[in-house]
Amino acid sequence: MGSFQVRTDLALEARESIGEAESELRGVKVDEYYREEEDVRVTKVTIDTKNAAKAMGKPMGIYVTMEAPAMVEPDEDYHREISKCLAEELLKLLPGEDSEQNIMVVGLGNREVTADALGPQTVDNLFITRHIVKEYGKAAYNCNKMNLLSALEPGVMARTGMETAEIVKGVVRETAPDILIVVDALAARSTKRLNRTIQITNTGIQPGSGVGNHRNALTKESLGIPVIAIGIPTVVDSATIVMDAMEKLLEEEQGLDAVKLLSRHASPFPELNNMYMTGKDIDAVIKRISYTISEGINIAMEMRME
Amino acid sequence: MGSFQVRTDLALEARESIGEAESELRGVKVDEYYREEEDVRVTKVTIDTKNAAKAMGKPMGIYVTMEAPAMVEPDEDYHREISKCLAEELLKLLPGEDSEQNIMVVGLGNREVTADALGPQTVDNLFITRHIVKEYGKAAYNCNKMNLLSALEPGVMARTGMETAEIVKGVVRETAPDILIVVDALAARSTKRLNRTIQITNTGIQPGSGVGNHRNALTKESLGIPVIAIGIPTVVDSATIVMDAMEKLLEEEQGLDAVKLLSRHASPFPELNNMYMTGKDIDAVIKRISYTISEGINIAMEMRME
Amino acid sequence: MGSFQVRTDLALEARESIGEAESELRGVKVDEYYREEEDVRVTKVTIDTKNAAKAMGKPMGIYVTMEAPAMVEPDEDYHREISKCLAEELLKLLPGEDSEQNIMVVGLGNREVTADALGPQTVDNLFITRHIVKEYGKAAYNCNKMNLLSALEPGVMARTGMETAEIVKGVVRETAPDILIVVDALAARSTKRLNRTIQITNTGIQPGSGVGNHRNALTKESLGIPVIAIGIPTVVDSATIVMDAMEKLLEEEQGLDAVKLLSRHASPFPELNNMYMTGKDIDAVIKRISYTISEGINIAMEMRME
Amino acid sequence: MGSFQVRTDLALEARESIGEAESELRGVKVDEYYREEEDVRVTKVTIDTKNAAKAMGKPMGIYVTMEAPAMVEPDEDYHREISKCLAEELLKLLPGEDSEQNIMVVGLGNREVTADALGPQTVDNLFITRHIVKEYGKAAYNCNKMNLLSALEPGVMARTGMETAEIVKGVVRETAPDILIVVDALAARSTKRLNRTIQITNTGIQPGSGVGNHRNALTKESLGIPVIAIGIPTVVDSATIVMDAMEKLLEEEQGLDAVKLLSRHASPFPELNNMYMTGKDIDAVIKRISYTISEGINIAMEMRME
Repeated sequence: MGSFQVRTDLALEARESIGEAESELRGVKVDEYYREEEDVRVTKVTIDTKNAAKAMGKPMGIYVTMEAPAMVEPDEDYHREISKCLAEELLKLLPGEDSEQNIMVVGLGNREVTADALGPQTVDNLFITRHIVKEYGKAAYNCNKMNLLSALEPGVMARTGMETAEIVKGVVRETAPDILIVVDALAARSTKRLNRTIQITNTGIQPGSGVGNHRNALTKESLGIPVIAIGIPTVVDSATIVMDAMEKLLEEEQGLDAVKLLSRHASPFPELNNMYMTGKDIDAVIKRISYTISEGINIAMEMRME
Repeated sequence: MGSFQVRTDLALEARESIGEAESELRGVKVDEYYREEEDVRVTKVTIDTKNAAKAMGKPMGIYVTMEAPAMVEPDEDYHREISKCLAEELLKLLPGEDSEQNIMVVGLGNREVTADALGPQTVDNLFITRHIVKEYGKAAYNCNKMNLLSALEPGVMARTGMETAEIVKGVVRETAPDILIVVDALAARSTKRLNRTIQITNTGIQPGSGVGNHRNALTKESLGIPVIAIGIPTVVDSATIVMDAMEKLLEEEQGLDAVKLLSRHASPFPELNNMYMTGKDIDAVIKRISYTISEGINIAMEMRME
Repeated sequence: MGSFQVRTDLALEARESIGEAESELRGVKVDEYYREEEDVRVTKVTIDTKNAAKAMGKPMGIYVTMEAPAMVEPDEDYHREISKCLAEELLKLLPGEDSEQNIMVVGLGNREVTADALGPQTVDNLFITRHIVKEYGKAAYNCNKMNLLSALEPGVMARTGMETAEIVKGVVRETAPDILIVVDALAARSTKRLNRTIQITNTGIQPGSGVGNHRNALTKESLGIPVIAIGIPTVVDSATIVMDAMEKLLEEEQGLDAVKLLSRHASPFPELNNMYMTGKDIDAVIKRISYTISEGINIAMEMRME
Repeated sequence: MGSFQVRTDLALEARESIGEAESELRGVKVDEYYREEEDVRVTKVTIDTKNAAKAMGKPMGIYVTMEAPAMVEPDEDYHREISKCLAEELLKLLPGEDSEQNIMVVGLGNREVTADALGPQTVDNLFITRHIVKEYGKAAYNCNKMNLLSALEPGVMARTGMETAEIVKGVVRETAPDILIVVDALAARSTKRLNRTIQITNTGIQPGSGVGNHRNALTKESLGIPVIAIGIPTVVDSATIVMDAMEKLLEEEQGLDAVKLLSRHASPFPELNNMYMTGKDIDAVIKRISYTISEGINIAMEMRME
């Protein structure tokens, strides 16, 4: 393989690009099931070995992908269904189901750039409870078991002068949550996955992915607590999409091999660095899907109350 | 030429794509000058004949382009210089220099989509005077001659259910401005013109151009008053950029002719419809360049006071 | 009575301040009922005569007030109930129930001032259909009867240089809706009605009321079509609240008559002009109650589909 | 004195309310000077003893107040003058003038409540340098001495579930700034000081003051580094204004002593708790004065470069 790397934040796509047969060989496990009622395909990709991690370009861990084609539609009832699916899948990955926990949600990204505002808009609609329970006890919610939910929007480095990871680390140390849930906009390889795929992973966030690169590692290793990342691809990397379009066209037309052609270039599209591609109705989409995620987290918290 | 149309809102780029020699032949006049102090290249393209308009894919009229490479930098003093250039070029196109006029600025686009928010953010910083002069007279500003400035942000059809042109027409009929200035985000063909080129034209706005297609004609013909359009390209059309990248790569590599190849396809990249490409720091850029335009308009109004 | 006028946008409060007995005498009819399930008290005040209008300081017409104390709470299910009540009460006042209609919603107020953002935030969440039906017909919604809904956020005079009424009139003439629904933040006399009372009236909007005075008449008389106004008090007039507090304290303490005392002054609190008073959690409140109104309008439109 | 406490965040007003003679006696030092060119009155109140602190209801330290009546006007050049004054006064209070320093600005308050958005809007316009210097060195700015500026907007407890102080402490520990500058909206006693007075103090922020009470102590004691607080009163406490209006009216009218009257009540206006009063044009005012502060800080940083 040459120096041109297809860029995707989705383990599902990473696996597709290295081929099914090869991925199984190398220790990538895949389980799929279909939720008929909600028309959601759930794929669980488990990367068990260092070799598999290297081949996939993703750290070891579990990646659950929910593909929900109708998620781009403005159907409120359907979004409620997706939120419930998300709550269930999220709970499977959240450790310590039986005990009360202090959970912090971090909304990554830049509120001022529409396609990157998924994280910030998600934290806007969370049902925050930590300060109430701290002050009035669980009695305030009439329950015996209650998680404490807090939320942080760290902002972006160009405006803070600090790495996102510095801000998150500091607040985690001071307020000592048991678990971190990180929400972020992702980049997909294929336009057909845009805004209709949710990925949940227990690997946290690695440097260099995401729309704006506004972060470095947010992982169990760096923070000392489990980090669950929830993401939806809202953009396609510009170089990737050019590459895909060329591949399709050249093969159709002339049987040329675009990958081979491109792999001879270290950086075939320098003018596309720092550019991204997104849909024209991205504002309405982000408003809807951020609400779907925040409701998913709210429902998951409610399911753990007693 | 085939069915694939390179898409650009800039007359400058339209002329480049049909070739210099051909454009002159067909009646496109071009005047250029360089403002050394501000490092701004000003090009005036005049389309005089119907044939020229057809060849260029742009209506007859005057298109002034200011290329200011440093406009992407966060240098406040430089932006002030650009605003002054813009004011001067704008005044050359504004009719009725000697009389007091009622001027309405319309900020087109979608405030919620960062790359499309140029128009709305521009009207945020205008020095609005119409209501003051109507109520207190010119005495309020200690002057003998004073234009009345008003502003409108019509919003986008998905949120209003109305065409932008319907809203603008209605308000124009009711408040009877003498001149309309329309500000909008444009699409360029080349990434190198993004956010550093200002186009001013006396042709108004035609259907089908712009980021989100949120409008139909805003022209002297449709509104009954002169319409000056000011625009800055903030996005590149996705299909265009793919096409450009392919062209470059294929020619370098194999001498293939990408245009010919693409022209055999009616719609070579259907999955790129309704997508656009923009830079990752677009929020900071839009904030800056919208302020540069609003200051340009404010200075132009001030220069007409007496 | 002296020159000091207690200021309120609520017909309910206007009636209280002139006394029950007197109001009946003068031709103000009052019907009340209680919706037990939703804990909402509905009061219908009908002003039938010019005398009554003068005594009440409100134009002739019907004023329906829904008092819903729990509306300040963040209970989503309860807000859904209130939205349904609102839809029902709104439909009673909307003319032409049997035919398809073109309805425009106008969100008055200043989006940038939290307590005044009720109208703008309401239009953000409407289900806009006019452009879809115009382009694809009712088939797009699988129905035989369908209202066309459009929406307008005219902004405030300080930013547009135009009266709100000028903008609305122009757009109404151009797009020819059958009915106008106007949403606005109101001023109450009593803090206990803040954010928990909805007033619906068929009198439209009169000059001089509301938080920011950003309008003049929007009425059937001025626009030629029925105008229904929906409002929620989000602020208390500063002079009013001072007056109320004094009244209470003085009577308790010394048996003094504050009204008499104040009525000797033409403008007892000049420094309070252009000031208003609101709650510290007004951002969360406006977000919730604007959604309650937009859902009420959406449900009303749905109930008219067939 | 009774239980009714006049509430103000301004040391200047606290001193006025206890009387000049008494304050001097108790160890409150006052220095005044007038900057004629900018029409700014600067008052430096120094509280030196615990007794003085108790009498004033403010911690020991220095409070510099800049009264700039024209600050409410939309005059850009004047605001630039005020920013320069602010920069000079700020530098006098900033320790360590000769060395390079790492300075963090914290914008307190709620971005969603207009009158409380002073802090968040200030950090929007700062010239942030920490991440650039960390990555590229001072060479990036062509200088030998350069402060590192970073900024944090911690948000409000209702949205984060955390005390502002927890968030700030955590980030301070992680990123180790040398000095903290905290910007916040204040409450004044008198409407005549609204939006035209800047207070700078080296005492930091104490619990219980400010518009929304969204914080507890941010002081040298709690954070381990010097904390400079910059504030502008944007609201008047509702109970305070009622009290002032009554006092004025009663004295004029009947020679009654309102303070004596009110001091007999523990909480004379319970319905005014959690309410505040502000001006109707607060959006335009906050936009202007937050820019005046951010420019003041930017200029101060520039004056320390070499």
